[in-house]
Amino acid sequence: MTRTPQKSDKFTFGLWTVGNVGRDPFGEPTRAALDPTYSLQQLAERGAYGVSLHDNDLVPQGASAQERDRIVGTFKRALADTGLKVTMATTNLFTDPVFKDGAFTSADARVRAYALQKTMRAMDLGAELGAEVYVFWGGREGAEVDAGGKLLDALGWFRDALNFLAAYSESQGYGFRFALEPKPNEPRGDIFLPTVGSALGFITTLERPELFGLNPEFAHETMAGLSFPHALAQALDAGKLFHVDLNDQKMSRFDQDLRFGAENLKAAFFTVMLLEESGYDGPKHFDAHALRTEDEAGVWAFAEGCMKTYLLLKEKVERFKEDPDIKAALEAYRVRDERLEALGRFSPENAEALKAEAFDLPALRTRGPGLERLDQLTVELLLGAR
Amino acid sequence: MTRTPQKSDKFTFGLWTVGNVGRDPFGEPTRAALDPTYSLQQLAERGAYGVSLHDNDLVPQGASAQERDRIVGTFKRALADTGLKVTMATTNLFTDPVFKDGAFTSADARVRAYALQKTMRAMDLGAELGAEVYVFWGGREGAEVDAGGKLLDALGWFRDALNFLAAYSESQGYGFRFALEPKPNEPRGDIFLPTVGSALGFITTLERPELFGLNPEFAHETMAGLSFPHALAQALDAGKLFHVDLNDQKMSRFDQDLRFGAENLKAAFFTVMLLEESGYDGPKHFDAHALRTEDEAGVWAFAEGCMKTYLLLKEKVERFKEDPDIKAALEAYRVRDERLEALGRFSPENAEALKAEAFDLPALRTRGPGLERLDQLTVELLLGAR
Amino acid sequence: MTRTPQKSDKFTFGLWTVGNVGRDPFGEPTRAALDPTYSLQQLAERGAYGVSLHDNDLVPQGASAQERDRIVGTFKRALADTGLKVTMATTNLFTDPVFKDGAFTSADARVRAYALQKTMRAMDLGAELGAEVYVFWGGREGAEVDAGGKLLDALGWFRDALNFLAAYSESQGYGFRFALEPKPNEPRGDIFLPTVGSALGFITTLERPELFGLNPEFAHETMAGLSFPHALAQALDAGKLFHVDLNDQKMSRFDQDLRFGAENLKAAFFTVMLLEESGYDGPKHFDAHALRTEDEAGVWAFAEGCMKTYLLLKEKVERFKEDPDIKAALEAYRVRDERLEALGRFSPENAEALKAEAFDLPALRTRGPGLERLDQLTVELLLGAR
Amino acid sequence: MTRTPQKSDKFTFGLWTVGNVGRDPFGEPTRAALDPTYSLQQLAERGAYGVSLHDNDLVPQGASAQERDRIVGTFKRALADTGLKVTMATTNLFTDPVFKDGAFTSADARVRAYALQKTMRAMDLGAELGAEVYVFWGGREGAEVDAGGKLLDALGWFRDALNFLAAYSESQGYGFRFALEPKPNEPRGDIFLPTVGSALGFITTLERPELFGLNPEFAHETMAGLSFPHALAQALDAGKLFHVDLNDQKMSRFDQDLRFGAENLKAAFFTVMLLEESGYDGPKHFDAHALRTEDEAGVWAFAEGCMKTYLLLKEKVERFKEDPDIKAALEAYRVRDERLEALGRFSPENAEALKAEAFDLPALRTRGPGLERLDQLTVELLLGAR
Repeated sequence: MTRTPQKSDKFTFGLWTVGNVGRDPFGEPTRAALDPTYSLQQLAERGAYGVSLHDNDLVPQGASAQERDRIVGTFKRALADTGLKVTMATTNLFTDPVFKDGAFTSADARVRAYALQKTMRAMDLGAELGAEVYVFWGGREGAEVDAGGKLLDALGWFRDALNFLAAYSESQGYGFRFALEPKPNEPRGDIFLPTVGSALGFITTLERPELFGLNPEFAHETMAGLSFPHALAQALDAGKLFHVDLNDQKMSRFDQDLRFGAENLKAAFFTVMLLEESGYDGPKHFDAHALRTEDEAGVWAFAEGCMKTYLLLKEKVERFKEDPDIKAALEAYRVRDERLEALGRFSPENAEALKAEAFDLPALRTRGPGLERLDQLTVELLLGAR
Repeated sequence: MTRTPQKSDKFTFGLWTVGNVGRDPFGEPTRAALDPTYSLQQLAERGAYGVSLHDNDLVPQGASAQERDRIVGTFKRALADTGLKVTMATTNLFTDPVFKDGAFTSADARVRAYALQKTMRAMDLGAELGAEVYVFWGGREGAEVDAGGKLLDALGWFRDALNFLAAYSESQGYGFRFALEPKPNEPRGDIFLPTVGSALGFITTLERPELFGLNPEFAHETMAGLSFPHALAQALDAGKLFHVDLNDQKMSRFDQDLRFGAENLKAAFFTVMLLEESGYDGPKHFDAHALRTEDEAGVWAFAEGCMKTYLLLKEKVERFKEDPDIKAALEAYRVRDERLEALGRFSPENAEALKAEAFDLPALRTRGPGLERLDQLTVELLLGAR
Repeated sequence: MTRTPQKSDKFTFGLWTVGNVGRDPFGEPTRAALDPTYSLQQLAERGAYGVSLHDNDLVPQGASAQERDRIVGTFKRALADTGLKVTMATTNLFTDPVFKDGAFTSADARVRAYALQKTMRAMDLGAELGAEVYVFWGGREGAEVDAGGKLLDALGWFRDALNFLAAYSESQGYGFRFALEPKPNEPRGDIFLPTVGSALGFITTLERPELFGLNPEFAHETMAGLSFPHALAQALDAGKLFHVDLNDQKMSRFDQDLRFGAENLKAAFFTVMLLEESGYDGPKHFDAHALRTEDEAGVWAFAEGCMKTYLLLKEKVERFKEDPDIKAALEAYRVRDERLEALGRFSPENAEALKAEAFDLPALRTRGPGLERLDQLTVELLLGAR
Repeated sequence: MTRTPQKSDKFTFGLWTVGNVGRDPFGEPTRAALDPTYSLQQLAERGAYGVSLHDNDLVPQGASAQERDRIVGTFKRALADTGLKVTMATTNLFTDPVFKDGAFTSADARVRAYALQKTMRAMDLGAELGAEVYVFWGGREGAEVDAGGKLLDALGWFRDALNFLAAYSESQGYGFRFALEPKPNEPRGDIFLPTVGSALGFITTLERPELFGLNPEFAHETMAGLSFPHALAQALDAGKLFHVDLNDQKMSRFDQDLRFGAENLKAAFFTVMLLEESGYDGPKHFDAHALRTEDEAGVWAFAEGCMKTYLLLKEKVERFKEDPDIKAALEAYRVRDERLEALGRFSPENAEALKAEAFDLPALRTRGPGLERLDQLTVELLLGAR
């Protein structure tokens, strides 16, 4: 096993992540913007597999068709030169003040229509660049003022937009798989579809639910004080893990977008375990950025760190599976009982039999599952002490 | 409009809510337990419509069949005497140490089987008492130690159990509608199906999704720093609001179960607005308890306060709809455009037309939606100043 | 009692609050900047008492001495014309990238020196404009990376800077009272002196503690999930409430800076009660801004709303004190016992007597303090129902 | 360096920690209580240095003087046999319903008096057992209902009580150092003195501030979303670290009291670094408990895990100091400038010189501090990869 990123690791970065200029609500940019082509070269040198982008990460808002084509042409050549893929595309529906009160869920029908237009064009771009996954992050789809009375309408408008855009993709033969990216709040007071679960629930109300899945983000679930591995597991259980955003974050805070593994090493470890063992074979996408304190060297230290920490944790996943003490603890943790498990498949007879079953409750109450020990073994494994 | 609770308000209380003895993790009970029959009388006098219960709120764990029947008989007579209904029933799968590592999601097959047995029996009880809604709150379905490796299995076990129990209910002709009650954490480190959205997503993976809906709780969403009105709206949008738990809570805290309206008056107001205007006609169920500081007089002050605050907020919902300044602000907030809205229904032609549309972006960017004023008008309405 | 702001209410606004252009981490400005003179006129018309400012709210970074004097001259004439006062001044030590890793606590000695220079000049400006309170908000004084190892040094550097600047003020005869403004996080991962308590603790380590007090901000304590009224009470108890920042915020979230009373009406009510009843006679300073959705009309709706809600709550404080049911409940809540209270003043004899005292514990355990009822009465008062 | 606990490590445990029976707000005990003498033996075998206790951990509430003396005698012999010390004592002012609305801050003067009595007796016990530090954790000193109007009075009553008890200790010659233990909430809605800072601020208002310091707890600061290493640094900076409570916790959650290092490995690492490098030589006190899922074997796995993780992190602190890449990164991070640092010591001349200084702002703005790299090196060190 190597700690040097390989193409086969499928590590990808948003252009906006390494290109982040270090602006925050209280301060001006601390770094210059990076030319997308330059970012491709730098990422390729470091072993990345591909990039993702918003329409305006590449083509500035308001560019003419000619400019757009020139920029896209240059970028496609750079992709060819570097061997990087565009693995995911998405729309910037949040920077322009036009979207200040939402895009697909704006109370202004003109804004909703414009959001459709902008997204169709961005989908055209994504398809041209070969992206297979199209992400919807509804960063402005939310509200601070519930008195506006649009809570139910907004969900309807959102659904109409997603149905429209899925039909557009199909009609154009783009073949996109769509991935919803939930976030609980910031920049809006409350964002619609705040958690992985909300998005899973919403998908079932769409016309073509099979085209839609999730792009869960580590930091976003964590902002809501929820466990990212648990959210990831639910997305996997539902067959809906279409993409994943890896980064880090303290709980119940502003959106920090820290380097993967920078904060919650244990949760990062279980995240890697789920991704590696579930058969997920999409990109491992880092959606984060260097701290605002950093210069360009810090940007590349950040990018390298994301990948290296992933690989280190992947090594530990292997070791976890082989550690004899851990194996024994895991085995002891689970109690099988074939007879009772068989009764758990419903039939009237099984139900009657289960109702009549006598359980040794005192024994069940006092049995120790050994979880403190198992957890401590895991900590020691993470610390490199086993 | 009256501020005295009427049967038609359908206010209900869990037996465990008024019966709460004021124990907490750091202190012993401060109040005596209440006899269920006595609670019925007290609640009936105060205008409640019904009660809900866990199996063990009425029948102690380990009671013989004879005792059980005697207790149930007494309780049914008290229901008849007071005219109260049992509107919801549920299972206590959390107090007994047997469930310390989960019930339906225990890693021990014997515990999972016992949880099925206990729930079938509790469903028999609920059906006998006339309950129409059966709630699943998976308070122990969770984990502190993800190293146990059961995240995906647990969701499968949970699904198997719900499928089994729905089939049992149908086979017995109980006709229950099942309501899942999400909670993010406490007593477990992380609880499976932590938010309203998670439960909505999970339901679609069940065999009989039409039998399952939600029992969203104000405090539980709030513990995750999420907006309860937003969660309620998603449950309504999905046609899945089967029951509702009203109470209050500070964000990102331990489970407080405060009196409805005790903390977030604005969110309580929008909650009442959604319930009253959505056509929801189930019970308004208060799942909270008097502060541990209180004696029995405090318990009834608590119960009366829940209902009175609901009725006061319902009055304000009426006033909100009639206030001319608010009406004007709401009207100004929404911009319709029939032509663009028509283009938003997908056809290849509409898509082309939308892509070619010229939008007056500067106008859309600078338009003020008037939300600060609308929100301030709402605050003044809540304060009784309009 | 009037709901129209009067000079005697001492309502003040930061120039940066009404001047906020609606930029956030994900979006560009939605409003034009306001000329400070224009803001003065608008605020004066609405009954404000004064304004506060950072150096760069008035004088752009890098302005020549001549420009600076011209700008200040114009502003002073506008102050005279409008009758507004500059009640507080402060330094912008956060926007310029030079401060990206802290100002007084930067690991770079040159940045620390520059922060002193910039603050001395800003103090000169504040003194020239007649400000009596000088605020230190250490928005960049913090860290994301504790590996830098500066935690203890940073507190030392911070102390050195405050000691230097207090000495400077005294040497210039400015007579400033200094007010520290704590904040837990954002824009830094963790900010030094995160809560009101931290600042109170830190002041006692300064050379001239009597010159330093607090500028507690409602939203900042709330971001840490703490009660603002409780923090305010501790500042008052310590005799350290030198200034106050009123606004609103959901708990455990990004910095929202909402209109006063927009979120937590009950906490706002107790805040007003403490300010009105404690003898605090400084400015009631609104440090918030209109939602990013708003145009200029929304800005003034925001400013008017802050003041009106304060006045409405002040009315309710009066009513609270006069309501007979509330008075009775408050009286019943407190139990005096002069003999025992006297024994609570230490002497060896009192200690012996107290140790020998026999208490009627069963009675103390079962006594109900009536807090549910008192709280419900308060809610009804807030809702205008009593 | 050894990973086996030594007496010189000064690891201590509360009797209530290993003795925790696994009760929580929703469930009954899962383990039997441990006899204190048995706990001493078990802890001694595992290398602990001492124990701490509440009065009622040893002597049941309501025991006669005779019983008390018998119990204490047995316990003292067990201390002598095992060589363990009682390093800290404290009072249980939270379990008995008498304290339901506070002890020193109850609105009932009789409860306040009884709290003094109980604490004096517990101090007598602590002194008899040789404890040098006496802890005040005001778990019930708080409020859910601020309408009670006692915020300012409560701080006064709290101060009176602490002054009384310090005088009592001195008059008895006990020589206790008092350590305040802050907590933000739970079991009360809001607890007075919620953070380390609050306690530091409060101490300065006491009659004998030199006798009072802090007992900061990892989990308690973390519940408020604050950084424990930052809080620890402020306590150290103020010379007030009298004791420390080590455990773990997810942010913005109910009180979890997890095994040290179970959740936040990085924060635990910086905690150990501060304790080891600051000259702190008090006990390293683990205030946590085994998960409720566990049997007695889990309890000892928990206790061993706390100590082992501390020792592993202490090894890593050594390695951190010696790692050449880390040393270089740390050196590069700090920029000294003796001339400017000298000007930072106030004199009118230095102030003038600083005001006139010309800074190379562009250079300061673009300098990269290398924090991403330093942080990544730290993560790799923690993972055992360097």
